[in-house]
Order: sequence, then C-alpha cells, then structure tokens
Amino acid sequence: MAEEHKAPDWDAIENWDRRYYLHNTMAAAEHSFTGVERVDGNYITLSSGARLLDFQSQLVSDSLGHRHAAPHDAIKEAMERYGHVFFGMANEYRARAAKLLVEDILGAPASWASRVRFLTSGTEAVENAVQAARLFTGKPLIMTQAHSFHGMASGSTFLRGYRGNLTLQGQQGFSEVRDIPGVPAPGYIPIPPPEPTDFPAEGELPSLVATEQLIRACGPENIAAIITEPMFGAAGLMPHADYYRGLFDLLRRYGILWIDDEVLCGAGRLGKWFGYQLTEGVEPDIMIVGKGINGSSLPSGGMVVNEAIGAFLEGARWWSGSTWDGHPLVCASIVGTLSYMLDNDILATVHARGAYLRDRLEALARKHTVIGRIAGAGLYYAVDLVGSDGRPLVEADRYTNFSGDLSQYPNAIVSGACAEKGVFLGGFVPNTIKCAPPFTISESEIDVAMDAFSYALDRLAKTC
Amino acid sequence: MAEEHKAPDWDAIENWDRRYYLHNTMAAAEHSFTGVERVDGNYITLSSGARLLDFQSQLVSDSLGHRHAAPHDAIKEAMERYGHVFFGMANEYRARAAKLLVEDILGAPASWASRVRFLTSGTEAVENAVQAARLFTGKPLIMTQAHSFHGMASGSTFLRGYRGNLTLQGQQGFSEVRDIPGVPAPGYIPIPPPEPTDFPAEGELPSLVATEQLIRACGPENIAAIITEPMFGAAGLMPHADYYRGLFDLLRRYGILWIDDEVLCGAGRLGKWFGYQLTEGVEPDIMIVGKGINGSSLPSGGMVVNEAIGAFLEGARWWSGSTWDGHPLVCASIVGTLSYMLDNDILATVHARGAYLRDRLEALARKHTVIGRIAGAGLYYAVDLVGSDGRPLVEADRYTNFSGDLSQYPNAIVSGACAEKGVFLGGFVPNTIKCAPPFTISESEIDVAMDAFSYALDRLAKTC
Amino acid sequence: MAEEHKAPDWDAIENWDRRYYLHNTMAAAEHSFTGVERVDGNYITLSSGARLLDFQSQLVSDSLGHRHAAPHDAIKEAMERYGHVFFGMANEYRARAAKLLVEDILGAPASWASRVRFLTSGTEAVENAVQAARLFTGKPLIMTQAHSFHGMASGSTFLRGYRGNLTLQGQQGFSEVRDIPGVPAPGYIPIPPPEPTDFPAEGELPSLVATEQLIRACGPENIAAIITEPMFGAAGLMPHADYYRGLFDLLRRYGILWIDDEVLCGAGRLGKWFGYQLTEGVEPDIMIVGKGINGSSLPSGGMVVNEAIGAFLEGARWWSGSTWDGHPLVCASIVGTLSYMLDNDILATVHARGAYLRDRLEALARKHTVIGRIAGAGLYYAVDLVGSDGRPLVEADRYTNFSGDLSQYPNAIVSGACAEKGVFLGGFVPNTIKCAPPFTISESEIDVAMDAFSYALDRLAKTC
Amino acid sequence: MAEEHKAPDWDAIENWDRRYYLHNTMAAAEHSFTGVERVDGNYITLSSGARLLDFQSQLVSDSLGHRHAAPHDAIKEAMERYGHVFFGMANEYRARAAKLLVEDILGAPASWASRVRFLTSGTEAVENAVQAARLFTGKPLIMTQAHSFHGMASGSTFLRGYRGNLTLQGQQGFSEVRDIPGVPAPGYIPIPPPEPTDFPAEGELPSLVATEQLIRACGPENIAAIITEPMFGAAGLMPHADYYRGLFDLLRRYGILWIDDEVLCGAGRLGKWFGYQLTEGVEPDIMIVGKGINGSSLPSGGMVVNEAIGAFLEGARWWSGSTWDGHPLVCASIVGTLSYMLDNDILATVHARGAYLRDRLEALARKHTVIGRIAGAGLYYAVDLVGSDGRPLVEADRYTNFSGDLSQYPNAIVSGACAEKGVFLGGFVPNTIKCAPPFTISESEIDVAMDAFSYALDRLAKTC
Ligand SMILES: Cc1ncc(COP(=O)(O)O)c(C=O)c1O
Ligand SMILES: Cc1ncc(COP(=O)(O)O)c(C=O)c1O
Ligand SMILES: Cc1ncc(COP(=O)(O)O)c(C=O)c1O
Ligand SMILES: Cc1ncc(COP(=O)(O)O)c(C=O)c1O
Repeated sequence: MAEEHKAPDWDAIENWDRRYYLHNTMAAAEHSFTGVERVDGNYITLSSGARLLDFQSQLVSDSLGHRHAAPHDAIKEAMERYGHVFFGMANEYRARAAKLLVEDILGAPASWASRVRFLTSGTEAVENAVQAARLFTGKPLIMTQAHSFHGMASGSTFLRGYRGNLTLQGQQGFSEVRDIPGVPAPGYIPIPPPEPTDFPAEGELPSLVATEQLIRACGPENIAAIITEPMFGAAGLMPHADYYRGLFDLLRRYGILWIDDEVLCGAGRLGKWFGYQLTEGVEPDIMIVGKGINGSSLPSGGMVVNEAIGAFLEGARWWSGSTWDGHPLVCASIVGTLSYMLDNDILATVHARGAYLRDRLEALARKHTVIGRIAGAGLYYAVDLVGSDGRPLVEADRYTNFSGDLSQYPNAIVSGACAEKGVFLGGFVPNTIKCAPPFTISESEIDVAMDAFSYALDRLAKTC
Repeated sequence: MAEEHKAPDWDAIENWDRRYYLHNTMAAAEHSFTGVERVDGNYITLSSGARLLDFQSQLVSDSLGHRHAAPHDAIKEAMERYGHVFFGMANEYRARAAKLLVEDILGAPASWASRVRFLTSGTEAVENAVQAARLFTGKPLIMTQAHSFHGMASGSTFLRGYRGNLTLQGQQGFSEVRDIPGVPAPGYIPIPPPEPTDFPAEGELPSLVATEQLIRACGPENIAAIITEPMFGAAGLMPHADYYRGLFDLLRRYGILWIDDEVLCGAGRLGKWFGYQLTEGVEPDIMIVGKGINGSSLPSGGMVVNEAIGAFLEGARWWSGSTWDGHPLVCASIVGTLSYMLDNDILATVHARGAYLRDRLEALARKHTVIGRIAGAGLYYAVDLVGSDGRPLVEADRYTNFSGDLSQYPNAIVSGACAEKGVFLGGFVPNTIKCAPPFTISESEIDVAMDAFSYALDRLAKTC
Repeated sequence: MAEEHKAPDWDAIENWDRRYYLHNTMAAAEHSFTGVERVDGNYITLSSGARLLDFQSQLVSDSLGHRHAAPHDAIKEAMERYGHVFFGMANEYRARAAKLLVEDILGAPASWASRVRFLTSGTEAVENAVQAARLFTGKPLIMTQAHSFHGMASGSTFLRGYRGNLTLQGQQGFSEVRDIPGVPAPGYIPIPPPEPTDFPAEGELPSLVATEQLIRACGPENIAAIITEPMFGAAGLMPHADYYRGLFDLLRRYGILWIDDEVLCGAGRLGKWFGYQLTEGVEPDIMIVGKGINGSSLPSGGMVVNEAIGAFLEGARWWSGSTWDGHPLVCASIVGTLSYMLDNDILATVHARGAYLRDRLEALARKHTVIGRIAGAGLYYAVDLVGSDGRPLVEADRYTNFSGDLSQYPNAIVSGACAEKGVFLGGFVPNTIKCAPPFTISESEIDVAMDAFSYALDRLAKTC
Repeated sequence: MAEEHKAPDWDAIENWDRRYYLHNTMAAAEHSFTGVERVDGNYITLSSGARLLDFQSQLVSDSLGHRHAAPHDAIKEAMERYGHVFFGMANEYRARAAKLLVEDILGAPASWASRVRFLTSGTEAVENAVQAARLFTGKPLIMTQAHSFHGMASGSTFLRGYRGNLTLQGQQGFSEVRDIPGVPAPGYIPIPPPEPTDFPAEGELPSLVATEQLIRACGPENIAAIITEPMFGAAGLMPHADYYRGLFDLLRRYGILWIDDEVLCGAGRLGKWFGYQLTEGVEPDIMIVGKGINGSSLPSGGMVVNEAIGAFLEGARWWSGSTWDGHPLVCASIVGTLSYMLDNDILATVHARGAYLRDRLEALARKHTVIGRIAGAGLYYAVDLVGSDGRPLVEADRYTNFSGDLSQYPNAIVSGACAEKGVFLGGFVPNTIKCAPPFTISESEIDVAMDAFSYALDRLAKTC
C-alpha cells in the first residue's frame, strides 16, 4: 500500500532520501542530510528545529521570500479552473503573463521586446534561445563567457563557465575531474570573462580585444549569437562598468545577436527590471527569464524575442514543442508575482534595502581585510575573499573544478559559521560570498545577517 | 498599473495571446485561436462555450483527466508548508515521491531500479540521462531511433525522429523545411525505426540487423547508450513484438546502456506501470519518466537509474544543478498521483477500459477500410489510416517534415470532424490517430468518442 | 657528418628503421622487419635475397607493376624542366593530365565530368570532395558506408568503416580497442554496408531500405552527399548487383550528391576505366581518383567534379590551397601512365587476364571448401574464407577491430604460406584474400600465384 | 589516341588548363593564366618568355631553389631501384631519412625527439599529429591560434586562422564569404594571436592571459594539445619575443601537449634547423615538417614525436595507413636535401644572406614610410605595410576574409610591380609582403629584389 500522508517521520524521510534520491553536487560520503520542515517568509525551518534567515533566496531565486501570497494565491485561484492545457490551446494566464511582461514591463510595442514564450526552467528557455538564434541567423556558433552558467541541458551545459561535471573520489580524495564525453560540444566557442569592477582600465578592455580577435578568427559569418549574464550568478562576478557597452558595440558591428540571460539577475534583482538596463543604450535581441519571474514558486522560465525574430518565428511553423509550454498554473504564478511587483513598486524597495545592505557590507570591508572586493547592484552583492597578498584564497577562484576537500574552502567555512548564527549565506565558488536576500528583507534582518557574516569572517581569518 | 484579476475578457485575452505570445508549431497565418475557459475531469470548456471530451489526454499527458483531486489536493496541502526548496536541502515530498516510485512501484532493492531524480520536464530528464550515460561509460555516442521523440532541448532535440524544426512560408505555401544550423549534432547516431506490429517477420528483424551493423560500424567502444520509446508517442508507432527482446540482447552483447524513455508511455498508460514490462525479461539501465507521473498537474520529469549508475553518481560530485531539482510542490503532485494510483489499482481500470476501447476500435476497422492498422496496449492505441492501395495516405507518413497545407492532412480532417462532435481526438503525424483517453474515461464516453471517430472516418473517406 | 650514399648496409638500415621510424598498423612487439632491396616489374626483392611475385600490387595501388617505364620516363623527362610549381601558376603537365582524364577518358564535354584537381593522396582528394560537396549544397552531413575506407585525415578517417584506431596491449595481449577522442566526428552518418553479391534478393535490398530510413530520419535538407566505393578496397567487398542502381535512384530522389571514391578501383582495376561504369545508367557528381592513376609511381590523388559543381567552384574564390596542388612531377607521372594505358588498350589486357584469374579462382573454389565466395571484376577479386558451417572463420569479419593475436587470423596464415612460395598475397580483413595483381601480370604468373594460394588454403584448412 | 609529348603548344595548354583544371583561390573571372615553361635555380621562366627571380621560394617552400641537384639526383638514383613500397615493408631511404632527421639533426637519443613518420604533405602530417595527440592523451580538444594556417583537410582546415573558404561573386563583386557547413568543427578551440614583435610588453602578454583563461574555461582535462607556428607562414606574423617562452610554461603547467608546426619555418628557414630553437629552453612534444625538408622537390611532410608518444604509439597497433607512408622516392629526396644541407653547412649561408637581407630591408624602411614593421629571422622576413596613421592599409589585415577587389590590395599592387621588374615577391594577406628567397640566393640577387621592392613601394605610395 502507498504511503499515507501523516505528520512527517523525519527518520523515515531521511532514510528514503538517502537511499532513493539521486543527489546533486555532493557525493554521498560528504553529504549531510538537511531536512526542511517548512518555509515561511524569509525563514527556513529545518527538521532539527533550527530556523534560518534565508539571505541567499535559496539559489538567488526566491525573490519574494517563501510562500508569498502573491504567487501562492494566484496559483490556488487558477487551480479552480485549470490544470494542464497544452500549447495548441490558449489559456487566460499565459496571455496575461505575456501581456504583463512584454507590454507593461518591457514597454512593447515601443521597445525592443516583441513576444515571450513561457517554459518551465531557465535551462529550457536558454535551449530555446540558442535554437531560435541559430534558426533566425542560419549560423551555427554561439559564443559564451568563461565563468558563466546557463543551465544543465546539453546545449546550456556547453554554454558553461562551469565544467568539471563529475569529481571522482580517488586515493587523494575528490581529486579527479571528469568531463562529459563529447563535451565541450561543437557550436560553442568560449571567450574570456569580463574584467572585474575594479580593473584599472585604460583603453579597450583586454577581454573585449580578445573577444574581437576570436570573432574574427571564427568568422562573423559563422556566429549566431553571444550569450551573457548581466552579473554572473554562479560565479558572483560583476563585470567592469565599460564591458557591456563595449560588447554591445562589437556585436552590432559584426552582426551578431545578443542573448541576455536574466534568469538570475532579472525581475528586479539588480534594482532594475532587467540587468541590461544598468548599461545605457544597450538592448538584447533575446532575453531569458526565470527564477524571480514568479519568485520560484513553481518551475518557470521564459524567452523574450525582439520584433524581427518574433516575426520570423511566428511566420513559420516552429516545431519546438514542450508539454509544458504556457502551463496555466505556472503562468498564474507569474501573473501573481509580476502584478504584485508592479502594484507595490518593489523596485523602490530593492533600491532602498540594497543601499542599506551595500553600506553594511562596506562597513564590514573596512573591518575585515579578508574582504577584497564588493561588487553588485540592487539586492545582489558578491563579496570576494582574499589573502594577505590580496590574491584569492583558493587559487582556482571562479575557474574552480571543485576538487579537493570542499569543506575547507572559504565559502564553506563562511556558510558553516553563518548557519551557526541562524543565517543561510554562502557562495558557489570558493572565494565569493553571495548576499542576495529576498526583496522582503527588513533592515533589521540585514543587520542580523551582517553580524553573522562578520562572525564568519573572523572565523575564516583564523583558519587561513 | 498591472492587470487586475477579473472575469475573463476573452477579446482582450485573444488579443494579448496573438500579439505577445510566441506560439509553437503553427505559423500565425494558419493558427486559429482556441481559448480554454476551464477544464473539469475528462472535459475541456472552450471560451466559445463548446465542451470537448478529451480523448487524447492533451499530449497523452493528463492521465487522470483534468484537475483530479489526487494531485490537486496534494499540491494544496504541500503549499501550507512549502514553496521552493533547493536541492542542497531535502524536503519531505521528494523523499516520499522517490520512495513511492523506486520502492513501492519498481520494487527496489529487489529490482534493477536504484535511485531517482525529479526535474521539471521530460526533456530535462532525458538530458540528465544522456549525460549520466556518457559519464558512467566514458563513451560519447547515443543511438536514437528514427521516428522517436525525446524533447526539445539541444541534446534531446538531436535525439529526434522529428526534424524539420522550421517550416518556412515560400511562394508555394509552407514548403521549405529548415533545420537548426549545427544540427544534427555530434554524438547522436540515428538507427532505423522498428518494424510495425504486423510486419511478417521471419528470422531477425531487418531493423535489428541494420542496428547491429551500425553498432559495429561506429564501434561499441564509442557507444554509451541507445534511447528508445516503448511505444512511440509523437509517431504513434507500436514496435513489432520481437523488437525489444532482440534489441535488449544486442545491447547486452555489446555492452551498451539502455535508456528507456517512458515519459509518454509510463505510469500506467500501456497497462503496465512501465512500458518495458510488456516484454518479458528486459529491463532498462536508465528510465525516464514524466507526464503521467503526476497526471501533468505540474511540470514534471524524472530519471531512474540502476544500481551501478546510482552508486557511481552518488560516489562522485555531479555538478548537474537545476534550480528545480526536487521542487516540493512538483514532488507533492507526484506523491498524490502515485499513491492514488496504487491505492485504487488504476492499472486494473486501464486494462478494463483498454480492452473495451480496443474492441470498439476493431469494430470500427471492420467498417472503415481506411483503417489500415490498430496497434497499442493499455489505454493507448494508434490507428493508421491507409488508401485503397493499403499504403499511407500521405507519403511522408511518420517521417513527415510537415510541409504543405496541413489542414488537408488526414489527421487534421479527423480532428476537425471529431471536434464538431465534441471530441478532442487527432494525431501528430498525418496518417495516425492517437486514442489515449484519461484513465478516468467511462465506457459510455468511449462510445461517444468512437461515434465521433466513425463520423470523422466517413468524412475522410469522402475527401480522399 | 651526414650519411653517405653507399651500398646498403641492411643491419644499419634495420636498426635505423626500428629505432627512428614511427610504424603503421603493427606494434613494435609483433612487427618483423622486411627490407625491400629493389623492385622490378611484378617482383619485389627483399634484403634477405628472397623474391616475391607481387600479386596484390602493394596496396592494390601499383597497377603497372614496379618501376614501369611509362610513369618513370615521364617523371625523368619532366625533371629536365620542372621541380615544384605552385598552384597560382600553370605547368604543362597539370594541363595535359587534366585533358587526358577529363576529355580523353571521361568524355567531356559530352559527359558528366567537367574539371579535375590533382593532389598528392587519395586522402586529400576525399577531403577536398567533402568540402566541395558541403560548400556546393550548403548542407553539412555526409553519409558513409560501414566497411568502407576513405583515408586517414580527420574528415576521411571519420568516413570509415575502419575504426579501432589504436589497439593497445593489455594483459590479454592486444585486446583493448581505443578510438580517437572526438571521433566519430559530427557530420558523418554511418549507413549499413551493401549486401554481398550472393545475397538472395527479393524486392528492395534491406541495406537500401535502411539507408532511406536514415536519410529521412536525418532530413534530406541536411545531407550534402553520400560517399561510396565501387568495390570495397580495404574490406574486399563487392556489392550486390542491384545495389548501386538502387542507391543512385535514392540519391537522385532526395537530391543528395554522390561522391564515388575510385582511389582503389578506378583507372582500370575493375575492367572499366572507373568502377561506376559497371552499373548501367549511373554517374557520380564527384569522383575521387588516386593510386592507379599513375601506377603509384609518386604520391597522387585527384578530384573530378561535375559541370554544376565545377562552375560553382570556378565562379568563386575557393581558399583551398595545398602546397602540392598540380605538382608538375606528379602530373607528369599521371600523363605517362594514362597515355600509355590509352595507347596500349590496357583495359583489354585487364579483361583477358581477369577472366583467366577468375577461372583459376573458381577452380580453386571447387577444390577448397574453405572458399565461401569469390567476388570481383577486372583484375580485383575478393575471396571470402568460411568454416564448415559456411560462416566467416573470424566472427568480426569485415567489422574487425583487429584485436587479439593477428598472426592466427586466416589472412595472416594465407599470406605467410604464400610468401613461403614466393608470392605476396593476403588481405586486410581476417577472412578475405584480395587478388589484385598488376595489369602486367602474365598467365603463367597467375598460375604460380594460384598454386601458392592453393598451398596456403591447404595449410589453413589444417589449422581451423 | 592519347596526347603525344611534343614541344609545348601553350595555346592548347592554356585552353586545357582553363577548361579542365579546378583552380585554387582565384575565381575564373579574375584568374590570369601564367604558364611556367621551366624552372632553373632561383629563376622561373614563363611561357611568355619572361624570367622571374623567385624571391618567395614559391610558397616559402622551395628552399634550395628549383631543380637543385641534391634532391633531384637522389630521386633519380632511387628510381634505379625503387618505385612505390608500402608501409608494411621497409625501404632504405625511409630508414636513412629518419636517421638523418632524428639522430643527426635533432640529436636523438639525447634530445626530446624520438621517431618520425614521413607522409606526403604538411596537411597529412598535421592530421596525424592531431590524432596522435588525442590518442596519447585521451583528450579531445586542440587549441589553435587565430591567423595560423595548418593545411586544407578537415582537421587541419579547422585549425585555421584562415576561414572564408569560399568567396562568392554577388552584385557587389566578390563580397559574400561562405564557410564550409559544419565548420568550425568541434574539437578545435581558437585562441587569440600572439602580439607582434614591437608590442610594448609590460607584465604578461594579454594573448597569454586570454589563452590561460580559455584553457581554464574549457578544462585542462579536455585539452590534448595546442598547435602553433614558430613564425606564421600564411599570415607573415612573427610572435613577440616573450610569447613562446610564456606559452610553453602555460602548457607544461596545465599538462597540455605542444604541436609545433614547422612545415614552413623548419629545415633552416629561420636560421635554425627548426624555429622552436629560437626560444631558449622550449621543446615541442610533436613537430610537423614538410616543404623545405626536401626543398619541395616532391610532395612531402612528416611528424616527429617525443619519446613518450613514440613509445605509446609503437607499443600499440595504430591503424593509420596512408598509401604513401614512407614512399622511397619521397624519402630519397629528403635524404638528398638534408645530407646536402648538413654537408655544406647551409645554416651558415642562411645566417649570412639573412643578415644581408635584413640590412637591406631596414634601409628600405628608412626610405619608405609605408613600411610599418619588419619582423623575421634567417631568410624569412615579413614586411607590414601601413598608412600615414600607422595602421594597416586594409583594415581586415591578417583576419582577412578576402572579399572585395583583391587586385587593389597592397600585396597585389606590390607583387604586380615586382613582376614588372622580374621579381616574384608578394604576400598572402593584404598588408604583408613575405621575403623568403631560396637559401641559394646571392647578395646581388637580393639587391635586384630590393630594388624591385623599392620600386613597388613607390608605386603603392602613389595609390594609397
Ligand atoms: C543565469 C542562469 N541561466 C540559466 C539558469 C538555469 O535555470 P534553471 O535552473 O531554471 O534551469 C540559471 C540557474 O541558476 C542561471 O543562473
Ligand atoms: C517520449 C517523450 N520523451 C520526452 C518528451 C519530452 O517531455 P517534456 O515535454 O516533458 O519535456 C516527450 C514529450 O512529449 C515524450 O513524449
Ligand atoms: C577507396 C580509398 N579511398 C581513399 C584512400 C586513401 O588514399 P591515400 O592512401 O592515397 O591517401 C584509399 C587508400 O587506400 C582507398 O582505398
Ligand atoms: C605552417 C603550415 N602547416 C601546414 C601546411 C600544409 O602543408 P601542405 O601544403 O604540405 O599540405 C602549410 C602549407 O603552407 C603550412 O604553411
């Protein structure tokens, strides 16, 4: 007989999870079970009874905190009329969500944006964008930045700054990095990462010089698009202020499309509706959204295309079916989230809380020499940790292939110490801590998180 | 100001949908707006007021009909405690769903199955499987059957029997088929499709002879896996009875993994929990699930791996992160669906209704000479339409690149006539109608659908 | 000081060859040094003093025997005026060779053939052809037959029936086959091999049914060309009589170019100037030549294109430079060979000697039950060896990845026994002996070779 | 009847060449027929009667001038005993050539070099090297510099700085550049070009910074080798003095093989036996030779491997057969050339004449402001032409995709004016003239060439 729904028996749950779930990122040997009993607002209650302030919005994804009424009520309301409706038929929420995003927020028809398709992950939206760019241009190549992350499917995986898709345990611990056979795949050309914000620029940025050399080496006639992140999510890297202006010019000069991946940075995270708006006078040809678009209440993703691409694709039959294209409940959660954000001027909140957070971080930097750089915007700041020589503590830095004993990495030490203080705060790469709280964070909660962070930095200073 | 939630204004909705949504499959010029007002049980209510019996379960996906209490109540219950929880933390529903599928249904630890990961589409699960197979074997190639469909991302798209990813409008109408530049991608080797059920087999099936020749030509040392569908979903093809036994032997002989894509056929559709169980003595190495696993109430997908692959991947760090891995609400909908199916012996219902449907279809075949073949199992039957010469009406058949005027294709004529009679029934390829009602279908609803189908076949007979 | 040119000291030569040359095919451990002192007509004199009748024309390449006056005198004559002249300037011999081949032999302008380019290997000509086909059609895929061989560069290697590019020595001897990482490459789609001549055909050949399925699966809009061998060289396989007619129809129906690789079978080997002429009413779009074109006196290869491709490529700048394009000495050797063949009606000789050889082989087959099949034409016959059950002696047959102890393979046993009798005769794949003497062979030399072969077959019968 | 060998009828020859030969690089419309009547020493006699001093050694290939006795006598001598001998048997010249190169010149066994294989083009040797590197390392990727050239086969083509494989004639003349579908191929990762010699370096070279970023982005675990040219042949670029030292360190640090392509620069061209010897303390893992190795008397190429790779490949069966592997006549021409160079200390001649040439070029530079840079070594100097602003005259420079009217490019203007003065001198890319005379050049011939060059630069100055 099937399992009955009763009050959680965490021993059984832990047992099942350990035995039957295929885990991500961590090997079983180094994995510690962390059960979540429930989530409420900005807090996570663990099965142990501990309560954590979520200062990372999970994966910089849950931007309205947890179980926010805006998406949750919209989902419940939609469930009164809808389950699943396939893409061949229209449903009310898909039309509403499209109108909200493309017209109300992006300003169509007066702007670059023309149409959107909703899918159920950033990954799928990236895959759709890569295919759309290739079909529209008739060209095969996509250029992609070192350090960037765009998802986990074949196409999006190859668009990765993050390789090292398997780290095996050998005699020296987890030391052997093994990539997926057949990867990197054809059609993806890596370019150097942008310089950081404090790079002493004179003249053209070296990363852009090299990018132009690679464009000319590959032949502009072969390159469909370049895909970028406004601020790097997994890598926690904010590009130099001159970077996107320069890159945009390069792309226009060589007739290459720009795919702007706003899965992590879009929907208000950087204090603008979308990150590209931080740079004057640039605009994408294709934009990818996800995560914050519905506060991650349900799996979501979307692709917005410009007028020319929209007309091209709508003028043809594009056999691109996903079972979940325009799912009514997912679209309802987007409608709920975006209308709430519009109605309550959430961008203003992001600005205000972001300024407060940045001040607090800069105060910390004055105290802790281990802080080498603070970069970001809105409510997303990356804090880079350095040694006394001013260099990253772990040499691999953002290129890491994550070998060795990860529990001794600066990010692990910081997140461990923060957790002790009831704060969920850490980072994906060894030397970078990502402060990305929900937009619902309060100033006093920021204070709590900063105190925990300060405590953690003291701990770190002792170990290195 | 953002859109308020009011009673639907279908004119506005149609307008927004037409202007702002990027549509799938149909070009704008041939697209007719079909708004769905609500869905209930086995019925779809259109904005026009029309009501359709859903005899196709949307995309052979909504196997419990629409808004079934089993998944819907589970989702609502879960929403009391959970929103999104990222993969680094465990949630109750992911553990329960894993236990239900791997232990209660697949019989672990006594069976081949070992672990599952839940994602949010079949596509993503396929992509995960391709990567897992390559990582585990250290080999790059995946073999894939002509006619098969495995999704829309780069990797899964390349695993396609369905190419023709864009049909452009030229002077002769929609006639030019354009593929994605860079596709077919490396690493995917096509093999011939299986013979149909009525192929007069003597000795080895020619498709398997050719498959063995291609395995040896590519070198077994290069081939990670072959991916197959138990019965073909998009193509509506049921393989010959000897096919899977023979293929399985071939794979074991050459040390090649078997990825069994049960996204469409699994979770009871073919009268077994999973389609591979129709063939005595075979078992997959990796199995993909989706659609029916939660009645498509929310976007879902999953990958089940065998013991060796599970141990290999859990023994390593696999950097394979999706934001949505193990999403609590998605997992809750799976728990709700699977426990309901187990508790109410839904497989028995599928058998009973399936036998009734098959009888009715065979009666139709005696009456309509345009029916050339009926093939299927459980509650999924493909009806192949032929001309007086016994050959497919549209020559392209299952290879179609979908050019020309699709409204004159047999499948379009049938689905148009059925819709007139209040039944949603059609097919994806020109000559094949897919009967795949929800498991909640009644005998009298089957009668209604069969009458509509009979009416449609008469109509078709007149036009060809 | 550098080495002086003195009478050969074979000890020193063997030493240098073993130490400094990077050998092909054989591992050092199993390699036995066979020094060639000189070659004359149909004979090879070894450093040991032994003299071998070359009944294989080396690699089915030296079709006028060794050091034939026709090419040798032409080379010497050309050396009076020419060394190297690069492709930007014209030289007399390149024009003469082109005129001889395209006009005098292939019948331009009244025939399909239009232009030729001369390179210095079959490999390079194949590479040129693959690029020309892709450029002309704008399509990326090339289809290639299992068992076929087209050379050793990246493109031509991927067009291979012969994988197994490295066989490593493990504890069980040479057992581990390792392919080149990144191979098979994208753009090359394998198709099944043709059926052999004695396949009991009713209706369409299964290999062609599967080929059509694969064409449709990949999409004709993606396929530039198919490349084939008239009779397979490395594999020693003569296709069924219906094969090329059927394949040609398929290619025309789907608008796919035909690249006919005549490197081994062209220039008279099969009793026609080119092997495609064995099949009524077919003609290639691109033809590759090599080997026999100059009796292999110097490294050579060439690509002949049809009118449309010729006009397309000459109408554009094709940046396809090889240092050796149209090398005067190579072209002189072609002029010498082809004029000699035309002037002396060598095709008639090939017919006469070929008929004699075939009779003698058939007589052998009546005597030796180990002969399972004789197939070929002109002066190229493949003799397939079988066990008492009528099946190939070595299971791998033409798919061989050449693992295990090759000295025990039937081809090695036969060639060892023939060498004892002063005849160079063997084969590349385990069960197939290739009789392909120079066109200068006499009937009595055929008798000698057949006696040796008979002796070898007796030896073989004893060992298996 | 076939063509008789009579005194050349240049009208007929021109006619045949225009009609039947498939030309390289130039479209028919812009091609002017230049027949070569004969070549002698440093001179080319045209069919028009004109005589040209070859100051470019054809394609920087014929380093002993034309029809030099050293290779020619060796070929004729070898023809007394040898025609073609396949790789399964050894011939005297292949052993002698291997010993001369690996032991006498490269210093084995005391040096890095271990074994050589001789093929018939640089292209084929490059292809062999790419395969050897992948097999030895088990890794798929090869990194390749923008601007570099490594040949015309699939693998070597993809290793190109030179794309633009077809320039089509459109309404604006030759303006549309079309690349080979399926190109760039997987497995080839472009890196930025080296900085030129006069780059004002402080700290690490930006090209090396970017190269390291790309290595880390792709993952060192995926990269088999990097392939480079000591000085760029087609591009005429001499890398900055710090470049190879820095690159070598990078490769050693990340465990990546170095393939040094010395086809154009090796065999004395740069005043050392091989170009890598210009940089202290570096040594390749695989070295490619060709062209100068036999003065281009016959088609040639070769691959030298280090001890570890040699042992690995000789310890296995490497199925890598070319018909022409170790061809006795080709090897004889190498023996003739290399022994002559050793016996007559040709390197000393290269130094002496090279110093004289460099002086003369520097004198020219003082006179002609259009000369922006002179870079090179030995007897190979690249002269970069600039406008009054110091920038390249044609913007595309070394990235050129060769569109537009090439007859107005600086290199075409210079070579036209030099030809008027009886000197063959020009360049492959628009702004760079390549001075690369035979090693047999005399000082007075250098004077003649420099006067012609000076005249041509005056002409150029007038047109731009
Ligand atoms: C920038 C970016 N793109 C794409 C993705 C993939 O999105 P998803 O996890 O929704 O598939 C992510 C996920 O973190 C991301 O940060
Ligand atoms: C057999 C099969 N595999 C994979 C997929 C892709 O699943 P999804 O649409 O959930 O991405 C489908 C979808 O129809 C399918 O039928
Ligand atoms: C059919 C065929 N094609 C191509 C080749 C490659 O020619 P080459 O060895 O001249 O490079 C060969 C060589 O044996 C061949 O038999
Ligand atoms: C550096 C380099 N590598 C490879 C090649 C290709 O050599 P080949 O023309 O002998 O095939 C060339 C030819 O110019 C070259 O310059």
